[in-house]
Amino acid sequence: MIRAERISSAQNLLLKRIRRAARTTGLTEEGFLVAEGFHLLEEVFRSGRPLEAVVCTEAALPRVRQTAGRHSGFRLVVVPPAVMEGLAATETNQGVIALAAIPAWRAEDLWGRQPLVLALDGIQDPGNAGTMLRTAEAFGASGVAALKGSVSPFNPKAVRASAGSVFRVPLRTGLTAQGLLTEAAAHGAKVYAASAEGSLPADAADLVGPCVLVVGSEGRGVSNDFRGAPSVRIPVTGVESLNAAVAAAILLYEARRQRGGVP
Amino acid sequence: MIRAERISSAQNLLLKRIRRAARTTGLTEEGFLVAEGFHLLEEVFRSGRPLEAVVCTEAALPRVRQTAGRHSGFRLVVVPPAVMEGLAATETNQGVIALAAIPAWRAEDLWGRQPLVLALDGIQDPGNAGTMLRTAEAFGASGVAALKGSVSPFNPKAVRASAGSVFRVPLRTGLTAQGLLTEAAAHGAKVYAASAEGSLPADAADLVGPCVLVVGSEGRGVSNDFRGAPSVRIPVTGVESLNAAVAAAILLYEARRQRGGVP
Repeated sequence: MIRAERISSAQNLLLKRIRRAARTTGLTEEGFLVAEGFHLLEEVFRSGRPLEAVVCTEAALPRVRQTAGRHSGFRLVVVPPAVMEGLAATETNQGVIALAAIPAWRAEDLWGRQPLVLALDGIQDPGNAGTMLRTAEAFGASGVAALKGSVSPFNPKAVRASAGSVFRVPLRTGLTAQGLLTEAAAHGAKVYAASAEGSLPADAADLVGPCVLVVGSEGRGVSNDFRGAPSVRIPVTGVESLNAAVAAAILLYEARRQRGGVP
Repeated sequence: MIRAERISSAQNLLLKRIRRAARTTGLTEEGFLVAEGFHLLEEVFRSGRPLEAVVCTEAALPRVRQTAGRHSGFRLVVVPPAVMEGLAATETNQGVIALAAIPAWRAEDLWGRQPLVLALDGIQDPGNAGTMLRTAEAFGASGVAALKGSVSPFNPKAVRASAGSVFRVPLRTGLTAQGLLTEAAAHGAKVYAASAEGSLPADAADLVGPCVLVVGSEGRGVSNDFRGAPSVRIPVTGVESLNAAVAAAILLYEARRQRGGVP
Protein backbone atom coordinates (compact mmCIF):
# COMPACT_ATOMS: atom_id res chain seq x y z
CA MET A 1 0.00 0.00 0.00
CA ILE A 2 1.35 3.40 -0.98
CA ARG A 3 2.29 5.60 1.98
CA ALA A 4 0.48 8.91 2.44
CA GLU A 5 2.40 12.11 3.24
CA ARG A 6 0.57 14.70 5.30
CA ILE A 7 0.96 18.34 4.31
CA SER A 8 -0.82 21.11 6.18
CA SER A 9 0.85 24.20 4.73
CA ALA A 10 -0.83 25.75 1.71
CA GLN A 11 2.63 27.12 0.89
CA ASN A 12 3.95 23.67 0.02
CA LEU A 13 5.60 23.66 -3.41
CA LEU A 14 3.39 20.93 -4.89
CA LEU A 15 0.22 22.69 -3.76
CA LYS A 16 1.47 26.00 -5.13
CA ARG A 17 2.05 24.36 -8.51
CA ILE A 18 -1.51 23.02 -8.52
CA ARG A 19 -3.01 26.41 -7.64
CA ARG A 20 -0.97 28.16 -10.31
CA ALA A 21 -2.06 25.59 -12.90
CA ALA A 22 -5.74 25.84 -11.92
CA ARG A 23 -5.58 29.63 -12.31
CA THR A 24 -4.00 29.53 -15.76
CA THR A 25 -4.08 26.77 -18.39
CA GLY A 26 -4.86 23.85 -16.10
CA LEU A 27 -1.36 22.47 -16.72
CA THR A 28 1.60 22.71 -14.37
CA GLU A 29 4.87 24.01 -15.77
CA GLU A 30 5.99 20.40 -16.02
CA GLY A 31 2.99 19.62 -18.22
CA PHE A 32 0.87 17.74 -15.71
CA LEU A 33 -2.88 18.18 -15.82
CA VAL A 34 -4.89 19.03 -12.70
CA ALA A 35 -7.76 16.52 -12.66
CA GLU A 36 -10.46 16.94 -10.00
CA GLY A 37 -12.81 14.29 -8.69
CA PHE A 38 -13.04 10.51 -8.57
CA HIS A 39 -14.44 10.06 -12.06
CA LEU A 40 -11.30 11.56 -13.59
CA LEU A 41 -9.04 9.72 -11.15
CA GLU A 42 -10.57 6.46 -12.37
CA GLU A 43 -9.98 7.55 -15.97
CA VAL A 44 -6.33 8.24 -15.23
CA PHE A 45 -5.78 4.83 -13.64
CA ARG A 46 -7.70 3.12 -16.44
CA SER A 47 -5.62 4.88 -19.10
CA GLY A 48 -2.38 3.75 -17.47
CA ARG A 49 -1.13 7.31 -17.89
CA PRO A 50 1.75 8.46 -15.65
CA LEU A 51 0.51 10.08 -12.48
CA GLU A 52 2.70 12.43 -10.50
CA ALA A 53 0.59 12.88 -7.40
CA VAL A 54 -2.83 12.45 -5.85
CA VAL A 55 -3.83 15.08 -3.30
CA CYS A 56 -6.83 14.32 -1.11
CA THR A 57 -8.48 14.99 2.22
CA GLU A 58 -8.40 12.51 5.09
CA ALA A 59 -12.10 11.81 4.45
CA ALA A 60 -11.46 10.95 0.80
CA LEU A 61 -8.36 8.82 1.49
CA PRO A 62 -10.10 5.41 1.82
CA ARG A 63 -11.88 5.88 -1.51
CA VAL A 64 -8.64 7.08 -3.13
CA ARG A 65 -6.87 3.91 -1.93
CA GLN A 66 -9.73 1.80 -3.21
CA THR A 67 -9.69 3.56 -6.59
CA ALA A 68 -5.92 3.21 -6.86
CA GLY A 69 -6.02 -0.51 -6.15
CA ARG A 70 -2.52 -1.82 -6.78
CA HIS A 71 -1.37 1.22 -8.76
CA SER A 72 1.71 2.86 -7.31
CA GLY A 73 4.56 5.14 -8.37
CA PHE A 74 2.91 8.42 -7.43
CA ARG A 75 2.95 10.73 -4.41
CA LEU A 76 -0.09 10.43 -2.19
CA VAL A 77 -0.60 13.63 -0.24
CA VAL A 78 -3.24 14.28 2.42
CA VAL A 79 -4.23 17.89 3.11
CA PRO A 80 -6.71 19.55 5.50
CA PRO A 81 -10.18 20.30 4.02
CA ALA A 82 -9.52 24.06 4.05
CA VAL A 83 -6.37 23.60 1.97
CA MET A 84 -8.30 21.36 -0.47
CA GLU A 85 -10.94 24.06 -0.88
CA GLY A 86 -8.23 26.51 -1.88
CA LEU A 87 -6.98 24.07 -4.52
CA ALA A 88 -10.24 22.96 -6.10
CA ALA A 89 -11.64 24.93 -9.03
CA THR A 90 -15.10 23.38 -8.79
CA GLU A 91 -17.60 24.58 -6.22
CA THR A 92 -18.44 21.15 -4.86
CA ASN A 93 -15.14 19.33 -4.67
CA GLN A 94 -14.95 15.63 -3.85
CA GLY A 95 -11.74 16.04 -1.88
CA VAL A 96 -9.40 14.62 -4.49
CA ILE A 97 -7.14 16.14 -7.14
CA ALA A 98 -4.70 14.23 -9.34
CA LEU A 99 -1.71 15.51 -11.26
CA ALA A 100 -1.64 13.38 -14.39
CA ALA A 101 0.47 13.38 -17.53
CA ILE A 102 -1.49 14.41 -20.62
CA PRO A 103 -1.24 12.23 -23.73
CA ALA A 104 1.56 13.28 -26.09
CA TRP A 105 -0.17 13.43 -29.47
CA ARG A 106 1.87 13.74 -32.63
CA ALA A 107 0.75 16.26 -35.26
CA GLU A 108 -0.43 13.37 -37.43
CA ASP A 109 -2.75 11.94 -34.77
CA LEU A 110 -5.24 14.78 -35.29
CA TRP A 111 -6.09 13.53 -38.75
CA GLY A 112 -6.38 9.77 -38.31
CA ARG A 113 -7.29 7.54 -41.21
CA GLN A 114 -10.55 9.30 -42.04
CA PRO A 115 -10.06 12.94 -41.02
CA LEU A 116 -12.93 14.59 -39.17
CA VAL A 117 -11.42 17.40 -37.14
CA LEU A 118 -13.33 19.74 -34.83
CA ALA A 119 -11.60 23.12 -34.51
CA LEU A 120 -12.38 25.40 -31.56
CA ASP A 121 -11.90 28.96 -32.80
CA GLY A 122 -11.92 31.41 -29.90
CA ILE A 123 -14.21 29.36 -27.66
CA GLN A 124 -14.03 31.03 -24.23
CA ASP A 125 -16.36 29.00 -22.03
CA PRO A 126 -14.46 26.06 -20.51
CA GLY A 127 -17.68 24.07 -20.03
CA ASN A 128 -18.40 24.38 -23.75
CA ALA A 129 -14.81 23.43 -24.66
CA GLY A 130 -14.95 20.30 -22.51
CA THR A 131 -18.37 19.32 -23.83
CA MET A 132 -17.03 19.72 -27.38
CA LEU A 133 -14.19 17.26 -26.64
CA ARG A 134 -16.68 14.77 -25.20
CA THR A 135 -19.00 15.08 -28.20
CA ALA A 136 -16.11 14.87 -30.67
CA GLU A 137 -15.07 11.54 -29.19
CA ALA A 138 -18.69 10.35 -29.09
CA PHE A 139 -19.20 10.95 -32.81
CA GLY A 140 -15.87 9.52 -33.85
CA ALA A 141 -13.99 12.70 -34.76
CA SER A 142 -10.37 11.95 -35.63
CA GLY A 143 -9.28 14.80 -33.39
CA VAL A 144 -9.85 18.24 -31.89
CA ALA A 145 -7.78 21.39 -32.42
CA ALA A 146 -8.15 24.10 -29.79
CA LEU A 147 -6.85 26.99 -31.87
CA LYS A 148 -4.76 29.81 -30.43
CA GLY A 149 -7.09 32.21 -28.59
CA SER A 150 -9.43 29.51 -27.33
CA VAL A 151 -9.68 28.61 -23.65
CA SER A 152 -7.28 25.87 -22.59
CA PRO A 153 -8.98 22.47 -22.85
CA PHE A 154 -6.92 21.56 -19.77
CA ASN A 155 -8.73 24.18 -17.67
CA PRO A 156 -10.23 22.24 -14.72
CA LYS A 157 -13.81 23.07 -15.72
CA ALA A 158 -13.12 21.97 -19.29
CA VAL A 159 -11.52 18.74 -18.10
CA ARG A 160 -14.55 18.02 -15.95
CA ALA A 161 -17.02 18.78 -18.76
CA SER A 162 -15.02 16.50 -21.07
CA ALA A 163 -15.88 13.58 -18.73
CA GLY A 164 -12.53 11.96 -19.49
CA SER A 165 -12.46 12.55 -23.26
CA VAL A 166 -9.55 14.97 -22.76
CA PHE A 167 -7.44 11.86 -22.03
CA ARG A 168 -8.63 9.95 -25.07
CA VAL A 169 -9.42 12.13 -28.08
CA PRO A 170 -6.41 13.30 -30.14
CA LEU A 171 -6.05 16.94 -29.16
CA ARG A 172 -3.82 19.76 -30.38
CA THR A 173 -3.52 23.15 -28.76
CA GLY A 174 -1.88 26.37 -29.85
CA LEU A 175 -2.29 25.76 -33.59
CA THR A 176 -3.10 28.95 -35.54
CA ALA A 177 -5.88 29.19 -38.12
CA GLN A 178 -3.24 29.41 -40.85
CA GLY A 179 -1.44 26.37 -39.49
CA LEU A 180 -4.68 24.41 -39.47
CA LEU A 181 -5.53 25.44 -43.04
CA THR A 182 -2.07 24.34 -44.22
CA GLU A 183 -2.35 20.95 -42.54
CA ALA A 184 -5.90 20.49 -43.82
CA ALA A 185 -4.76 21.12 -47.38
CA ALA A 186 -1.94 18.61 -46.92
CA HIS A 187 -4.50 16.02 -45.85
CA GLY A 188 -6.98 16.85 -48.59
CA ALA A 189 -9.48 17.93 -45.96
CA LYS A 190 -12.23 20.43 -46.75
CA VAL A 191 -12.57 23.18 -44.13
CA TYR A 192 -16.10 24.30 -43.20
CA ALA A 193 -16.76 27.35 -41.05
CA ALA A 194 -19.95 27.16 -38.96
CA SER A 195 -22.01 30.33 -39.24
CA ALA A 196 -25.63 31.31 -38.62
CA GLU A 197 -25.51 32.94 -42.07
CA GLY A 198 -23.67 30.04 -43.72
CA SER A 199 -24.44 29.39 -47.38
CA LEU A 200 -24.73 25.60 -47.06
CA PRO A 201 -27.25 23.90 -44.78
CA ALA A 202 -25.46 21.22 -42.75
CA ASP A 203 -27.17 18.30 -44.43
CA ALA A 204 -26.25 19.63 -47.89
CA ALA A 205 -22.55 19.95 -47.04
CA ASP A 206 -20.41 16.97 -48.02
CA LEU A 207 -19.07 15.77 -44.69
CA VAL A 208 -18.22 12.28 -45.91
CA GLY A 209 -14.75 13.09 -47.20
CA PRO A 210 -11.90 14.35 -45.01
CA CYS A 211 -13.07 17.56 -43.36
CA VAL A 212 -12.57 20.13 -40.63
CA LEU A 213 -15.50 21.74 -38.80
CA VAL A 214 -14.61 25.15 -37.38
CA VAL A 215 -16.85 26.46 -34.59
CA GLY A 216 -16.31 30.01 -33.33
CA SER A 217 -17.11 31.77 -30.09
CA GLU A 218 -20.73 32.65 -29.39
CA GLY A 219 -20.05 36.35 -29.34
CA ARG A 220 -17.90 36.78 -32.42
CA GLY A 221 -18.36 33.62 -34.48
CA VAL A 222 -15.63 32.13 -36.65
CA SER A 223 -12.62 34.40 -37.15
CA ASN A 224 -11.76 36.15 -40.40
CA ASP A 225 -8.92 33.74 -41.08
CA PHE A 226 -11.56 31.32 -42.31
CA ARG A 227 -13.43 33.75 -44.57
CA GLY A 228 -12.20 31.84 -47.62
CA ALA A 229 -13.74 28.59 -46.36
CA PRO A 230 -17.25 27.47 -47.35
CA SER A 231 -19.64 28.33 -44.55
CA VAL A 232 -22.15 25.85 -43.23
CA ARG A 233 -25.29 26.70 -41.28
CA ILE A 234 -27.60 24.72 -39.05
CA PRO A 235 -31.12 25.71 -40.04
CA VAL A 236 -32.87 27.21 -37.02
CA THR A 237 -35.97 29.19 -36.30
CA GLY A 238 -36.58 31.98 -33.76
CA VAL A 239 -33.14 32.20 -32.22
CA GLU A 240 -30.15 34.20 -33.42
CA SER A 241 -27.73 31.35 -32.91
CA LEU A 242 -27.11 28.09 -31.09
CA ASN A 243 -24.88 27.47 -28.11
CA ALA A 244 -21.37 26.73 -29.48
CA ALA A 245 -21.22 23.23 -27.99
CA VAL A 246 -24.66 22.45 -29.43
CA ALA A 247 -23.63 23.72 -32.87
CA ALA A 248 -20.51 21.54 -32.80
CA ALA A 249 -22.58 18.54 -31.72
CA ILE A 250 -25.07 18.92 -34.56
CA LEU A 251 -22.31 19.20 -37.17
CA LEU A 252 -20.45 16.19 -35.77
CA TYR A 253 -23.69 14.18 -35.64
CA GLU A 254 -24.50 15.16 -39.21
CA ALA A 255 -21.01 14.07 -40.34
CA ARG A 256 -21.41 10.77 -38.51
CA ARG A 257 -24.85 10.26 -40.03
CA GLN A 258 -23.56 10.94 -43.55
CA ARG A 259 -20.68 8.56 -42.97
CA GLY A 260 -23.07 5.78 -42.07
CA GLY A 261 -23.36 5.75 -38.30
CA VAL A 262 -20.84 4.94 -35.67
CA PRO A 263 -17.86 2.84 -36.80
CA MET B 1 -38.24 60.11 -19.64
CA ILE B 2 -38.88 57.77 -16.74
CA ARG B 3 -37.60 59.06 -13.38
CA ALA B 4 -34.98 57.04 -11.54
CA GLU B 5 -35.28 56.34 -7.82
CA ARG B 6 -32.04 55.94 -5.90
CA ILE B 7 -31.84 53.19 -3.29
CA SER B 8 -28.67 52.57 -1.30
CA SER B 9 -29.91 50.13 1.34
CA ALA B 10 -29.59 46.44 0.49
CA GLN B 11 -32.48 45.94 2.93
CA ASN B 12 -34.94 47.60 0.58
CA LEU B 13 -37.99 45.39 0.02
CA LEU B 14 -37.66 45.22 -3.78
CA LEU B 15 -34.01 44.23 -3.55
CA LYS B 16 -34.78 41.61 -0.92
CA ARG B 17 -37.38 40.10 -3.24
CA ILE B 18 -34.82 39.91 -6.06
CA ARG B 19 -32.22 38.24 -3.85
CA ARG B 20 -34.72 35.71 -2.55
CA ALA B 21 -35.81 34.89 -6.10
CA ALA B 22 -32.23 34.51 -7.34
CA ARG B 23 -31.49 32.08 -4.50
CA THR B 24 -34.54 29.90 -5.18
CA THR B 25 -36.54 29.43 -8.39
CA GLY B 26 -35.57 32.66 -10.12
CA LEU B 27 -39.13 33.94 -9.69
CA THR B 28 -40.35 36.42 -7.08
CA GLU B 29 -43.37 35.46 -5.01
CA GLU B 30 -45.42 37.65 -7.35
CA GLY B 31 -44.23 35.57 -10.31
CA PHE B 32 -41.78 38.04 -11.81
CA LEU B 33 -38.62 36.70 -13.38
CA VAL B 34 -35.19 38.08 -12.48
CA ALA B 35 -33.51 38.79 -15.82
CA GLU B 36 -29.86 39.87 -15.77
CA GLY B 37 -28.00 41.75 -18.45
CA PHE B 38 -28.78 43.95 -21.43
CA HIS B 39 -29.48 41.15 -23.87
CA LEU B 40 -32.42 39.95 -21.77
CA LEU B 41 -33.57 43.51 -21.10
CA GLU B 42 -33.82 44.03 -24.86
CA GLU B 43 -35.78 40.77 -25.15
CA VAL B 44 -38.23 41.95 -22.52
CA PHE B 45 -38.85 45.28 -24.24
CA ARG B 46 -39.13 43.57 -27.63
CA SER B 47 -41.67 41.08 -26.28
CA GLY B 48 -43.88 43.85 -24.90
CA ARG B 49 -44.09 41.82 -21.70
CA PRO B 50 -45.06 43.66 -18.48
CA LEU B 51 -42.03 44.86 -16.61
CA GLU B 52 -42.19 45.62 -12.90
CA ALA B 53 -38.81 47.17 -12.36
CA VAL B 54 -35.35 47.71 -13.79
CA VAL B 55 -32.54 47.91 -11.23
CA CYS B 56 -29.20 49.21 -12.44
CA THR B 57 -26.01 50.95 -11.42
CA GLU B 58 -25.34 54.63 -12.15
CA ALA B 59 -22.81 53.54 -14.78
CA ALA B 60 -25.36 51.38 -16.58
CA LEU B 61 -28.17 53.98 -16.40
CA PRO B 62 -27.51 55.72 -19.75
CA ARG B 63 -27.56 52.41 -21.62
CA VAL B 64 -30.70 51.34 -19.73
CA ARG B 65 -32.44 54.56 -20.81
CA GLN B 66 -31.29 54.02 -24.37
CA THR B 67 -32.51 50.39 -24.36
CA ALA B 68 -35.86 51.41 -22.84
CA GLY B 69 -36.45 54.08 -25.48
CA ARG B 70 -40.02 55.28 -25.01
CA HIS B 71 -41.11 52.30 -22.86
CA SER B 72 -42.49 53.30 -19.47
CA GLY B 73 -44.71 51.93 -16.73
CA PHE B 74 -41.99 50.33 -14.66
CA ARG B 75 -39.89 51.37 -11.66
CA LEU B 76 -36.35 52.43 -12.53
CA VAL B 77 -34.09 51.95 -9.53
CA VAL B 78 -30.44 52.95 -9.28
CA VAL B 79 -28.27 51.13 -6.71
CA PRO B 80 -24.59 51.38 -5.71
CA PRO B 81 -22.26 48.86 -7.47
CA ALA B 82 -21.74 46.89 -4.22
CA VAL B 83 -25.49 46.39 -3.85
CA MET B 84 -25.72 45.28 -7.51
CA GLU B 85 -23.01 42.70 -6.90
CA GLY B 86 -25.06 41.25 -4.07
CA LEU B 87 -28.06 40.95 -6.39
CA ALA B 88 -26.45 39.48 -9.49
CA ALA B 89 -26.21 35.71 -9.82
CA THR B 90 -23.67 35.84 -12.63
CA GLU B 91 -20.01 36.46 -11.93
CA THR B 92 -19.60 39.26 -14.43
CA ASN B 93 -22.72 41.35 -14.12
CA GLN B 94 -23.50 44.16 -16.57
CA GLY B 95 -25.04 46.33 -13.87
CA VAL B 96 -28.65 45.75 -14.85
CA ILE B 97 -31.40 43.44 -13.61
CA ALA B 98 -35.03 43.49 -14.75
CA LEU B 99 -38.08 42.07 -13.03
CA ALA B 100 -40.27 40.90 -15.90
CA ALA B 101 -43.55 39.03 -16.10
CA ILE B 102 -43.17 35.53 -17.52
CA PRO B 103 -45.50 34.48 -20.31
CA ALA B 104 -48.70 32.84 -19.07
CA TRP B 105 -48.90 29.69 -21.18
CA ARG B 106 -52.05 27.60 -21.18
CA ALA B 107 -51.75 23.81 -20.85
CA GLU B 108 -52.62 23.51 -24.55
CA ASP B 109 -49.80 25.76 -25.72
CA LEU B 110 -47.23 23.05 -24.99
CA TRP B 111 -48.59 20.87 -27.78
CA GLY B 112 -49.16 23.30 -30.61
CA ARG B 113 -50.44 22.12 -33.97
CA GLN B 114 -47.67 19.58 -34.57
CA PRO B 115 -46.59 18.40 -31.10
CA LEU B 116 -42.85 18.09 -30.52
CA VAL B 117 -42.31 18.43 -26.80
CA LEU B 118 -38.97 18.34 -25.02
CA ALA B 119 -39.31 17.11 -21.42
CA LEU B 120 -36.58 17.85 -18.86
CA ASP B 121 -36.64 14.97 -16.38
CA GLY B 122 -34.52 15.77 -13.33
CA ILE B 123 -32.07 18.06 -15.15
CA GLN B 124 -30.07 19.78 -12.39
CA ASP B 125 -27.60 22.00 -14.22
CA PRO B 126 -29.22 25.39 -14.93
CA GLY B 127 -26.87 26.02 -17.87
CA ASN B 128 -28.03 22.79 -19.49
CA ALA B 129 -31.69 23.61 -18.80
CA GLY B 130 -31.37 27.04 -20.42
CA THR B 131 -29.46 25.66 -23.40
CA MET B 132 -32.22 23.07 -23.87
CA LEU B 133 -34.86 25.82 -24.05
CA ARG B 134 -32.78 27.69 -26.60
CA THR B 135 -32.26 24.59 -28.73
CA ALA B 136 -35.94 23.59 -28.45
CA GLU B 137 -36.96 26.93 -29.91
CA ALA B 138 -34.25 26.72 -32.57
CA PHE B 139 -35.51 23.38 -33.88
CA GLY B 140 -39.17 24.29 -33.75
CA ALA B 141 -40.30 22.28 -30.72
CA SER B 142 -43.93 23.03 -29.86
CA GLY B 143 -42.95 23.40 -26.21
CA VAL B 144 -40.79 22.41 -23.25
CA ALA B 145 -41.91 20.74 -20.01
CA ALA B 146 -39.55 21.10 -17.05
CA LEU B 147 -40.88 18.19 -15.00
CA LYS B 148 -41.10 18.24 -11.22
CA GLY B 149 -37.64 17.61 -9.78
CA SER B 150 -35.81 19.52 -12.54
CA VAL B 151 -34.02 22.81 -11.88
CA SER B 152 -36.23 25.87 -12.36
CA PRO B 153 -35.88 27.16 -15.93
CA PHE B 154 -36.28 30.61 -14.38
CA ASN B 155 -33.06 30.23 -12.41
CA PRO B 156 -30.88 33.21 -13.45
CA LYS B 157 -28.20 30.98 -14.99
CA ALA B 158 -30.83 29.06 -16.94
CA VAL B 159 -32.44 32.27 -18.14
CA ARG B 160 -29.06 33.51 -19.32
CA ALA B 161 -28.21 30.25 -21.10
CA SER B 162 -31.62 30.34 -22.80
CA ALA B 163 -30.57 33.58 -24.53
CA GLY B 164 -34.16 34.85 -24.42
CA SER B 165 -35.91 31.62 -25.45
CA VAL B 166 -37.40 31.40 -21.95
CA PHE B 167 -39.63 34.33 -23.00
CA ARG B 168 -40.67 32.76 -26.29
CA VAL B 169 -40.93 28.99 -26.22
CA PRO B 170 -44.12 27.55 -24.65
CA LEU B 171 -42.94 26.29 -21.26
CA ARG B 172 -44.61 24.34 -18.48
CA THR B 173 -43.12 23.70 -15.05
CA GLY B 174 -44.14 21.44 -12.19
CA LEU B 175 -45.81 18.81 -14.39
CA THR B 176 -45.26 15.24 -13.11
CA ALA B 177 -44.17 12.37 -15.36
CA GLN B 178 -47.64 10.86 -14.98
CA GLY B 179 -49.28 14.16 -15.87
CA LEU B 180 -47.13 14.43 -18.99
CA LEU B 181 -47.91 10.85 -20.05
CA THR B 182 -51.65 11.50 -19.66
CA GLU B 183 -51.51 14.69 -21.72
CA ALA B 184 -49.34 13.01 -24.35
CA ALA B 185 -51.88 10.21 -24.73
CA ALA B 186 -54.66 12.76 -25.09
CA HIS B 187 -52.72 14.41 -27.92
CA GLY B 188 -51.83 11.13 -29.60
CA ALA B 189 -48.15 11.87 -28.97
CA LYS B 190 -45.59 9.08 -28.73
CA VAL B 191 -43.26 9.40 -25.73
CA TYR B 192 -39.59 8.53 -26.25
CA ALA B 193 -37.13 8.23 -23.36
CA ALA B 194 -33.54 9.07 -24.25
CA SER B 195 -31.11 6.46 -22.94
CA ALA B 196 -27.56 5.38 -23.73
CA GLU B 197 -28.93 1.82 -23.81
CA GLY B 198 -32.06 2.73 -25.79
CA SER B 199 -33.41 0.09 -28.15
CA LEU B 200 -34.04 2.46 -31.08
CA PRO B 201 -31.28 4.50 -32.72
CA ALA B 202 -32.49 8.10 -33.05
CA ASP B 203 -32.70 8.01 -36.85
CA ALA B 204 -34.82 4.84 -36.75
CA ALA B 205 -37.37 6.32 -34.33
CA ASP B 206 -40.43 7.88 -35.94
CA LEU B 207 -40.21 11.51 -34.88
CA VAL B 208 -42.46 12.82 -37.64
CA GLY B 209 -45.75 12.30 -35.82
CA PRO B 210 -46.67 14.02 -32.53
CA CYS B 211 -44.00 13.11 -29.98
CA VAL B 212 -42.36 13.86 -26.67
CA LEU B 213 -38.60 13.54 -26.15
CA VAL B 214 -37.70 12.90 -22.50
CA VAL B 215 -34.12 13.68 -21.47
CA GLY B 216 -32.97 12.75 -17.97
CA SER B 217 -30.22 14.00 -15.71
CA GLU B 218 -26.65 13.03 -16.53
CA GLY B 219 -26.18 11.10 -13.33
CA ARG B 220 -29.37 9.09 -13.18
CA GLY B 221 -30.87 9.18 -16.65
CA VAL B 222 -34.60 9.18 -17.34
CA SER B 223 -36.72 8.27 -14.30
CA ASN B 224 -38.56 4.99 -13.83
CA ASP B 225 -41.90 6.62 -14.56
CA PHE B 226 -40.98 6.37 -18.23
CA ARG B 227 -39.89 2.73 -18.21
CA GLY B 228 -42.96 1.83 -20.28
CA ALA B 229 -41.96 4.25 -23.04
CA PRO B 230 -39.86 3.20 -26.04
CA SER B 231 -36.25 4.19 -25.44
CA VAL B 232 -34.20 5.96 -28.05
CA ARG B 233 -30.40 6.11 -28.18
CA ILE B 234 -27.93 8.33 -29.94
CA PRO B 235 -25.25 6.04 -31.35
CA VAL B 236 -21.91 7.04 -29.83
CA THR B 237 -18.44 5.59 -29.53
CA GLY B 238 -15.94 5.72 -26.68
CA VAL B 239 -17.95 7.76 -24.18
CA GLU B 240 -20.47 6.49 -21.63
CA SER B 241 -22.98 9.20 -22.43
CA LEU B 242 -23.47 12.63 -23.91
CA ASN B 243 -24.00 15.91 -22.08
CA ALA B 244 -27.77 16.23 -21.45
CA ALA B 245 -28.11 19.44 -23.48
CA VAL B 246 -26.20 17.85 -26.36
CA ALA B 247 -28.41 14.74 -26.27
CA ALA B 248 -31.54 16.91 -26.36
CA ALA B 249 -30.11 18.91 -29.26
CA ILE B 250 -29.36 15.82 -31.34
CA LEU B 251 -32.87 14.40 -30.82
CA LEU B 252 -34.52 17.73 -31.65
CA TYR B 253 -32.33 18.13 -34.74
CA GLU B 254 -33.17 14.58 -35.82
CA ALA B 255 -36.91 15.30 -35.39
CA ARG B 256 -36.56 18.49 -37.39
CA ARG B 257 -34.62 16.68 -40.10
CA GLN B 258 -37.24 13.95 -40.36
CA ARG B 259 -39.99 16.55 -40.53
CA GLY B 260 -38.33 18.19 -43.49
CA GLY B 261 -36.22 21.03 -42.16
CA VAL B 262 -37.17 24.24 -40.46
CA PRO B 263 -40.76 25.43 -41.05
